[in-house]
Amino acid sequence: MTLIVHGAPYSTCTQRILATLVELNVEDYKIEFVDLRKGVHKSPDFLKLQPFGQIPVLQDGDITIFESRAIVRYLCEKFAGQGTPLLGKTVKDKALVSQWLEVESQNYNPAASLIVREKVFAPRMGAPSDESVVAAQTPKLEKTLDVYEAHLAKSKFLAGDFFSLADLSHLPYTNLLVNAAGKSDLISSRPHVSAWWNAISQRPAFQKVLAMAKQ
Amino acid sequence: MTLIVHGAPYSTCTQRILATLVELNVEDYKIEFVDLRKGVHKSPDFLKLQPFGQIPVLQDGDITIFESRAIVRYLCEKFAGQGTPLLGKTVKDKALVSQWLEVESQNYNPAASLIVREKVFAPRMGAPSDESVVAAQTPKLEKTLDVYEAHLAKSKFLAGDFFSLADLSHLPYTNLLVNAAGKSDLISSRPHVSAWWNAISQRPAFQKVLAMAKQ
Repeated sequence: MTLIVHGAPYSTCTQRILATLVELNVEDYKIEFVDLRKGVHKSPDFLKLQPFGQIPVLQDGDITIFESRAIVRYLCEKFAGQGTPLLGKTVKDKALVSQWLEVESQNYNPAASLIVREKVFAPRMGAPSDESVVAAQTPKLEKTLDVYEAHLAKSKFLAGDFFSLADLSHLPYTNLLVNAAGKSDLISSRPHVSAWWNAISQRPAFQKVLAMAKQ
Repeated sequence: MTLIVHGAPYSTCTQRILATLVELNVEDYKIEFVDLRKGVHKSPDFLKLQPFGQIPVLQDGDITIFESRAIVRYLCEKFAGQGTPLLGKTVKDKALVSQWLEVESQNYNPAASLIVREKVFAPRMGAPSDESVVAAQTPKLEKTLDVYEAHLAKSKFLAGDFFSLADLSHLPYTNLLVNAAGKSDLISSRPHVSAWWNAISQRPAFQKVLAMAKQ
């Protein structure tokens, strides 16, 4: 059964799904493009699929799931044993993957996504950047990255010596922070964070997703 | 091996762990009290356990995990088959539990926790409530609750006809919204949300946790 990803390849949360599919070597999927610029995500038909009017949504036969971090967990469990073991292999590894996924969701993403919203999405929509938001969120993100720097001095990836869903989940927003928001210094000024970022962003799966986003 | 929960029973995120332990009929655990009022969570010893200086932390032998939503998932997987099946039983149920857990984490909690911070935690610390934050967050929470109302008209609990970790994860902050923040109208004005709230908050496990918090 062909998986259907409702989303947009240029959207950060859709990229989380696409990077996971590529890492898992899943090829039987298609993207049902949701044109955010035309407001398709707020249309009555789309709201039947996702009542909050957000992308992405995954359809797998009679299973429909939204929220990108729930979708990627579902995919990893469905395709366990295929491609990169993104959830880890042991009980301890799985616990640490869950932990760092939550750190991304609760500590890293709230600040990173607000900075990206102001420095990247607002200008793209022709709106001014609210620099007070950037000024408030940047020190929060720096504090989180200081913890990452100390942790990554002892650990190659977030959950241990293996690339996991926790690392992957950082890719879309960090890519925009570094390459579009003018915030690359947050990463490059921290040597272990920088080495980690180079390792995870240069993976062929994410490079493939970025190429899809450009099309 | 006795589980160790580093936290405080009056803290919302610790309550998520305690409610899960009680629902799973786990009795072999102890609470290592972290006195937030004395700043113990920012002490060098505690930072070795949790580098962000936040509670709770779970220790299970050589496994140490932080982030409450990662801890509760770990507990449900460790004690699968014991007590309430909080992650669901089928692949579809599990996907929907993950989805609604993420809705709690991404849509519900950001607004709910900021309102509780201003209306409950600030006054307890002798600080004024920032009413502009409450005014900004309340309509966001109302919009989320409108989606819940429509969904709960068709579904007894969030992920289906069974109580799950997704419902449980809403308990600590909603309890404070209703019983301490003066925001009970957000729930009581929506009949299906109200029936759901009554069903989940009156469960013996959560009542036991509230009794522990009062001690």
